Amino acid sequence: MNYREMNPSQLASELEGLRKKYEDYKALGLKLDMSRGKPDSEQLDLSQGMLNIVSDPAECVSENGFDCRNYGLMDGIPESKRLFSELLDIPADNMIVCGNSSLNLMYDAVARAMIYGVYTKNGCKPWFGQNVKFICPVPGYDRHFGICESLGIGMINVDMTETGPDMDAVEALVADDASIKGIWVVPKYSNPCGTTCSDETVRRLAGLKPAAPDFRIFWDNAYIIHDIYEKSDPLLNLFTEAARMGNPDMPLIFFSTSKITFPGAGVALVAASDNNINQFKSVMKYQTIGFDKLNQIRHVKFFKNAGRIREHMKLHAALLRPKFDAVLAAFERELKPVGVGEWFAPRGGYFISLNLPDGTARRTFDLCNGLGLKLTDAGATFPYGKDPLDRNLRIAPSYPALPELEKASAVLCLCAKIAAVEKALAC
Amino acid sequence: MNYREMNPSQLASELEGLRKKYEDYKALGLKLDMSRGKPDSEQLDLSQGMLNIVSDPAECVSENGFDCRNYGLMDGIPESKRLFSELLDIPADNMIVCGNSSLNLMYDAVARAMIYGVYTKNGCKPWFGQNVKFICPVPGYDRHFGICESLGIGMINVDMTETGPDMDAVEALVADDASIKGIWVVPKYSNPCGTTCSDETVRRLAGLKPAAPDFRIFWDNAYIIHDIYEKSDPLLNLFTEAARMGNPDMPLIFFSTSKITFPGAGVALVAASDNNINQFKSVMKYQTIGFDKLNQIRHVKFFKNAGRIREHMKLHAALLRPKFDAVLAAFERELKPVGVGEWFAPRGGYFISLNLPDGTARRTFDLCNGLGLKLTDAGATFPYGKDPLDRNLRIAPSYPALPELEKASAVLCLCAKIAAVEKALAC
Repeated sequence: MNYREMNPSQLASELEGLRKKYEDYKALGLKLDMSRGKPDSEQLDLSQGMLNIVSDPAECVSENGFDCRNYGLMDGIPESKRLFSELLDIPADNMIVCGNSSLNLMYDAVARAMIYGVYTKNGCKPWFGQNVKFICPVPGYDRHFGICESLGIGMINVDMTETGPDMDAVEALVADDASIKGIWVVPKYSNPCGTTCSDETVRRLAGLKPAAPDFRIFWDNAYIIHDIYEKSDPLLNLFTEAARMGNPDMPLIFFSTSKITFPGAGVALVAASDNNINQFKSVMKYQTIGFDKLNQIRHVKFFKNAGRIREHMKLHAALLRPKFDAVLAAFERELKPVGVGEWFAPRGGYFISLNLPDGTARRTFDLCNGLGLKLTDAGATFPYGKDPLDRNLRIAPSYPALPELEKASAVLCLCAKIAAVEKALAC
Repeated sequence: MNYREMNPSQLASELEGLRKKYEDYKALGLKLDMSRGKPDSEQLDLSQGMLNIVSDPAECVSENGFDCRNYGLMDGIPESKRLFSELLDIPADNMIVCGNSSLNLMYDAVARAMIYGVYTKNGCKPWFGQNVKFICPVPGYDRHFGICESLGIGMINVDMTETGPDMDAVEALVADDASIKGIWVVPKYSNPCGTTCSDETVRRLAGLKPAAPDFRIFWDNAYIIHDIYEKSDPLLNLFTEAARMGNPDMPLIFFSTSKITFPGAGVALVAASDNNINQFKSVMKYQTIGFDKLNQIRHVKFFKNAGRIREHMKLHAALLRPKFDAVLAAFERELKPVGVGEWFAPRGGYFISLNLPDGTARRTFDLCNGLGLKLTDAGATFPYGKDPLDRNLRIAPSYPALPELEKASAVLCLCAKIAAVEKALAC
């Protein structure tokens, strides 16, 4: 029976039963973690062969004869650019292949804009000292918001929809306010919503007419090939679309193999127009002599071509699918009948976004915590950690083993129900 | 015969002979490079065993049970901290072990100061928008000066002596001018002078009384164990000395294995006081989830302890020694008898600093270039690339094979002599 249809005494009785179950779980002394989008060890094992694929000195030489063990080649070895060019359909010359962290590239891109500004045809003007704001589609990725918060950049919430950010709101904001200089977008299998930008959304983003000449789209393509099911969400290529719309300099595109090979030892890249790449390099040459090219060559030798990367992702999908299925099944079984929560079943990525009844996300989080289940902090999917409706939780099913995940899902559903009934009784 | 003792007609005749030799070299179509401090491939081969030392999943687990393939452990795996703690005699808790580039750590440290300021007991005040200056001991490392130039930090030249920076000048400057917020120091086998800070210099640095409360010593300990000969230059520990003098927060210490294992795939670290490290981490947590821990564990498994690193450095020394000897022998043979140039014979590091007669460094560089010998640009060892006396050249003997290096040294000496005679004739 749906909680909304229960009278207070039915709710009180339900709560009593739920609390008894809660005490039973408490006695188990569980220690569960659904907090971060970390691959599990079986997923990591898939790339194990990469670790000794470069061993002899001759294997350390890139195709242009450069010894990858030594200094140099700041923008990456040519074969790694070609591999990722094929995968992302962006010209190799428009890429800088770097170290292990695309987050670091995003932070650096924003920090660089703060210190030096970004390319415009009238030069670069540092953002530091200006009133700078970013549009933050919500719920979104906490670490994007963290970069803005750390650098003193204001954040404006815009709702995520099933086709990406609410483009009516985005268009109106950027047209109106020259202090808005950026937007964060996880275009495919977004963190945490799991949704993908529709063709229309990509085209509207590509065709934005921002008041700020130094406006940039921070396009975090973290999950571009991270399908879980057979059918992949299609995604238009923002690099191409923006050029077509006369906005070639607007997108800054980020990608990494963190969730393809190793989160701790993958390869990350930034891709952008010639103007952007040239400005990046003009600063980066002071920053480093070069990134870890041996790790780049490992990736190239392990995968050889984009098709092999896509095949590899099917092995990840086979491990992830049952986990997503288990969480979604628990929601269907436990939450749907009582009318608690809304969620979207993503076809890829690493997260499920769970919207609970207003005002119960924090309480649910705390209750889970009390049973030893660690979740991403309530509010984390919003700027400054403040979910205005206190309703969103980000669920990360990838890391726990399946039996643990099933326990964790049951705990989460129980806690969500307790919070919902408490809330209903308090109203 | 010393050029200073020659009359104009003797000089003219000498020049004619030198120019004939120049044309002979030109006919050879040489292609030589003494421009950068790059290890040669034999040196890189010394660490080849590191590349497949981590292969099975079990080998990827750090001593605290953390899977190094995955996200996390932003400040490095405990065993890598312990290894470098033993080597550098700095507590492991005062280190952050990072990615492959200490230059990147130095850039980030200065950029962080620009954006956030550095720790003081009265909080952090961003350097951005202030008039900020660094003391730059000259001749010095071009990439240090590049960081300042890129970030708009003014640079004040202070002479290098055989015991390190001219401390009378440094003490007077920092006591007097609160806009001086930093000094670059390569304390051991300095780039390019090859000199090492004496105990007195280290103590005077540790005891500086700067007018700026947010003054920092950027201590680039790139060559701390990079001896070439049996006898090593001793170097006091600035971390300890600064704490003893009541200035624990003043040193920021940088180190990497770029010239121990692989320049492109080593491990770099920053070490500093608790206050500094805490402030660094408070920013870095927005910047990255973690550095490449697999490469850290490779280094630990390959070396095991500091003693083994020191043994490994003897293998490098055996390869580098004949190269330094060859360049110095050429100088003694070709330049000394004619009274051209001054140089210091370093006991370690990667460079020889050659001071030519005033006003002849650029001409020597150009002449070398005309024979296919690439040198570090004349002026590069000074801020803004401007050597006020146009006399210094940085010689990097490590990369060319010995026969090529001998040719390169002969070419360099010939060109230096031509430039010296031309200059003498013009005066």
